[in-house]
Amino acid sequence: MNFTANDIAEFLNGEVDGDGAVSVNNVSRIEEGREGTLSFLANPKYAHFIYETKSSIVLVNKDFVADKEIAATLIRVDDAYQALAQLLEMYEQSKPQRVGVEQPSFVSKTAQVGEQVYIGAFAYVGSNVKLGKNVKLYPHVYVGDNVVIGDNTILNSGVKVYENCTIGAECIFHSGVVIGGDGFGFAPSSANDYKKVPQVGNVVIEDHVEIGANTCVDRATMGSTIIRKGVKLDNLIQVAHNVEIDENTVIAAQTGIAGSSKVGKNCMIGGQVGLAGHLSIADEVKIAAQSGIGRTIKKEGVVLQGSPAFEFGPYQKSYVLFKNLPKMREQIIALEKELKELKK
Amino acid sequence: MNFTANDIAEFLNGEVDGDGAVSVNNVSRIEEGREGTLSFLANPKYAHFIYETKSSIVLVNKDFVADKEIAATLIRVDDAYQALAQLLEMYEQSKPQRVGVEQPSFVSKTAQVGEQVYIGAFAYVGSNVKLGKNVKLYPHVYVGDNVVIGDNTILNSGVKVYENCTIGAECIFHSGVVIGGDGFGFAPSSANDYKKVPQVGNVVIEDHVEIGANTCVDRATMGSTIIRKGVKLDNLIQVAHNVEIDENTVIAAQTGIAGSSKVGKNCMIGGQVGLAGHLSIADEVKIAAQSGIGRTIKKEGVVLQGSPAFEFGPYQKSYVLFKNLPKMREQIIALEKELKELKK
Amino acid sequence: MNFTANDIAEFLNGEVDGDGAVSVNNVSRIEEGREGTLSFLANPKYAHFIYETKSSIVLVNKDFVADKEIAATLIRVDDAYQALAQLLEMYEQSKPQRVGVEQPSFVSKTAQVGEQVYIGAFAYVGSNVKLGKNVKLYPHVYVGDNVVIGDNTILNSGVKVYENCTIGAECIFHSGVVIGGDGFGFAPSSANDYKKVPQVGNVVIEDHVEIGANTCVDRATMGSTIIRKGVKLDNLIQVAHNVEIDENTVIAAQTGIAGSSKVGKNCMIGGQVGLAGHLSIADEVKIAAQSGIGRTIKKEGVVLQGSPAFEFGPYQKSYVLFKNLPKMREQIIALEKELKELKK
Repeated sequence: MNFTANDIAEFLNGEVDGDGAVSVNNVSRIEEGREGTLSFLANPKYAHFIYETKSSIVLVNKDFVADKEIAATLIRVDDAYQALAQLLEMYEQSKPQRVGVEQPSFVSKTAQVGEQVYIGAFAYVGSNVKLGKNVKLYPHVYVGDNVVIGDNTILNSGVKVYENCTIGAECIFHSGVVIGGDGFGFAPSSANDYKKVPQVGNVVIEDHVEIGANTCVDRATMGSTIIRKGVKLDNLIQVAHNVEIDENTVIAAQTGIAGSSKVGKNCMIGGQVGLAGHLSIADEVKIAAQSGIGRTIKKEGVVLQGSPAFEFGPYQKSYVLFKNLPKMREQIIALEKELKELKK
Repeated sequence: MNFTANDIAEFLNGEVDGDGAVSVNNVSRIEEGREGTLSFLANPKYAHFIYETKSSIVLVNKDFVADKEIAATLIRVDDAYQALAQLLEMYEQSKPQRVGVEQPSFVSKTAQVGEQVYIGAFAYVGSNVKLGKNVKLYPHVYVGDNVVIGDNTILNSGVKVYENCTIGAECIFHSGVVIGGDGFGFAPSSANDYKKVPQVGNVVIEDHVEIGANTCVDRATMGSTIIRKGVKLDNLIQVAHNVEIDENTVIAAQTGIAGSSKVGKNCMIGGQVGLAGHLSIADEVKIAAQSGIGRTIKKEGVVLQGSPAFEFGPYQKSYVLFKNLPKMREQIIALEKELKELKK
Repeated sequence: MNFTANDIAEFLNGEVDGDGAVSVNNVSRIEEGREGTLSFLANPKYAHFIYETKSSIVLVNKDFVADKEIAATLIRVDDAYQALAQLLEMYEQSKPQRVGVEQPSFVSKTAQVGEQVYIGAFAYVGSNVKLGKNVKLYPHVYVGDNVVIGDNTILNSGVKVYENCTIGAECIFHSGVVIGGDGFGFAPSSANDYKKVPQVGNVVIEDHVEIGANTCVDRATMGSTIIRKGVKLDNLIQVAHNVEIDENTVIAAQTGIAGSSKVGKNCMIGGQVGLAGHLSIADEVKIAAQSGIGRTIKKEGVVLQGSPAFEFGPYQKSYVLFKNLPKMREQIIALEKELKELKK
């Protein structure tokens, strides 16, 4: 399908700057632009690419000012990145949607299946499962007994959901996600031998949650492990039993949250971060990648770094001095020498 | 099913303190207690919840002394956490057990299948596999050729076991566990090009081992990667080729152990720890989360932290001073200044 | 099958030192040697085992000089480790190869399937997929629409490849690998609410790439995430959208590379390393385990450590001083005291 700059500008409520008749049928990154594609420029760091790009159309922020001539047609919008997201979404929605039940698949007779559902070959739907409207279960998905899944949720190939868990509407889980595996709970039964503590709780995931490939969310020992509305989890994350992650918090890949910890709303947590168990993190806290949090953080909006972490600014200062420790050592030795001489 | 406080106390060999006729049909955390549920109090940190909880029954340690009135019936036991584990186990065992072979599944004609086995739909059992009594293979489990699995072991949906591996009795592996993938072995075939070293060994896992979701245990280059009796591995852990983990060691999520390293008995290893290859760790060593171990640890029972790690106490002292480096720097500058003035 | 030392020496172009008629039918590690097996000695650290090993044959480097008598027959070769790799490869290739289509499996009518392909039970092959000659898809593999897979590539049980991705020839992916899951891209749609940015790009993997169990390679937002020829990725690695990893780079387990970063050729990256987004790493760079890279590295062949990382030598020096911070503090206090006294 071809779209002209004029069409796109109208759809995005933007302004054409250049030839409105030029058309595109695909998207590309501005640094890899090709004729017939649309790119975007949001980060000023990439601004120099706009003068060389072969893309036919570039989305830019309203206030973008060109230094020299640009071959591409510009479309000026309020927020170029968001406008792109809007376009891509339209593009995604225009793709044909999977509907129906492929064979062989396994659907329990006691399962309730909503309208327009897709159940891929080799998917497994257990007893008393409830699937909302337009749910898509790709091949090799496992949905355990009594699981409830809300409307329009997509479980990609190989997602596993253990029994009794609840998943909201408009969620997307990627391949290899495991929801509801047993929490890591053992009671010492003699000095060095462990007895499993059965994990009889579940996992509750609210609406609009996206979970990346091979991420694990363990079921609660009792009660629920809870992921609130709008949370976004990247790949290979560990969420232990009885954790709660509050609304719209975003967590990057390979981070781990130990048992019973609570993370506030609108937090941003970098990759490979570790949170110890039984602590809580205030709203809007930001945590730098590879940090380790060992205590409750009560201050909203604070930015943390280090393992164990403290505030970002002081951490950066300490780290610069860590790099300069050999110099500091020399200063101390020089002082000792001078003092010795002075004493003579 | 309803149980009275008297019933439960009898089962647990505990003492009722309050109304023995009150009954429950579920469990809850003490801070989320609801009528008709049973909670427990083991950690004194949570003691204040016992005065407000709506739980009908609370398990407490024998020596618990109340500060004020408590609405719930108490059951006093030797160890409240273990007593809970016992109750939950009874509850788990009372659930109906899966038995039989769901269709479609794939079971090689040369496989030997024990009594009371469950083979879920879409499970795959290769040639010459031996499954013990009461083994449960959930949907989408893959068991490669010549694998042996002991009695009562449970492989949850999507566990993959490569050929020639051996798994003991009473084990539980969670979804996404991969046993026996090739170790990461390559020989430089020219300066910068690598040739795969075939990994012809296997993995041997002994009895009573639990392995968390998406954890990987690689097969040995030659010989066996070995996980001894009673080891507990959390989610997303990496165990490389020819590693050995000795009895009853417990390892938290996202830890990685590089090739040919040996971990002793009864060790406790935190989350996101890294162990380099070809080293060994003595028995009962404890390693703090996010630490990195680069050398053999010979001292039994030592507690380590840092990357590279050293003893916990000294690490903590160094880290406090790391935080105070800006102050230390000021002290040095002040000293330099004073000395300069003194020299004048 | 039995092979004599003479047979093996001929195959490897090596020289027999001892009884050439002795025969073996398996391999073992030198420290676990058993009669009838072949071992190798490459690392001088293990040399002492050669005097006690029960192995019948040991491969050694040409220049190996024995200190005392050795019971085993030696075969002297240019490179004992490579010679072993060659032998193991021969052994692997002598195993019967899987061919044909097991039932039930799902292969779209529009898929093109090459000669000698193996498609395991419960494998799923989508529309317009192209499978080269001798491709092996083990049970529970998912190959999305329009995927292309080159000759001789092996996808082990449970590998998932999303639509539109391209995989080269001679690749091996282990169980749980996810190729082409959505990149982690969200545009803030109000202050704290996120809107998914559809990820319309793909993943391109070139020839001779091996990827370890449960590793994830996300599809590009636009364009391609690219893994070049000869790259080796260990288990549980995260490769984010629009990353590029250049030829023959080797990355150990649990490392993560954030979005749009580029890694050069022939790099060696340790385990649990984190690379921030939008940076580039020069060729032949080496990065120590658990390091964090926060900026572009332009110097080829540099060795880095720390989080954030700097050069290995200086890092080691700083870290020794970090351990000695308590002593440094004492020195400063002593200086302050002496100076005070001097001033009196």
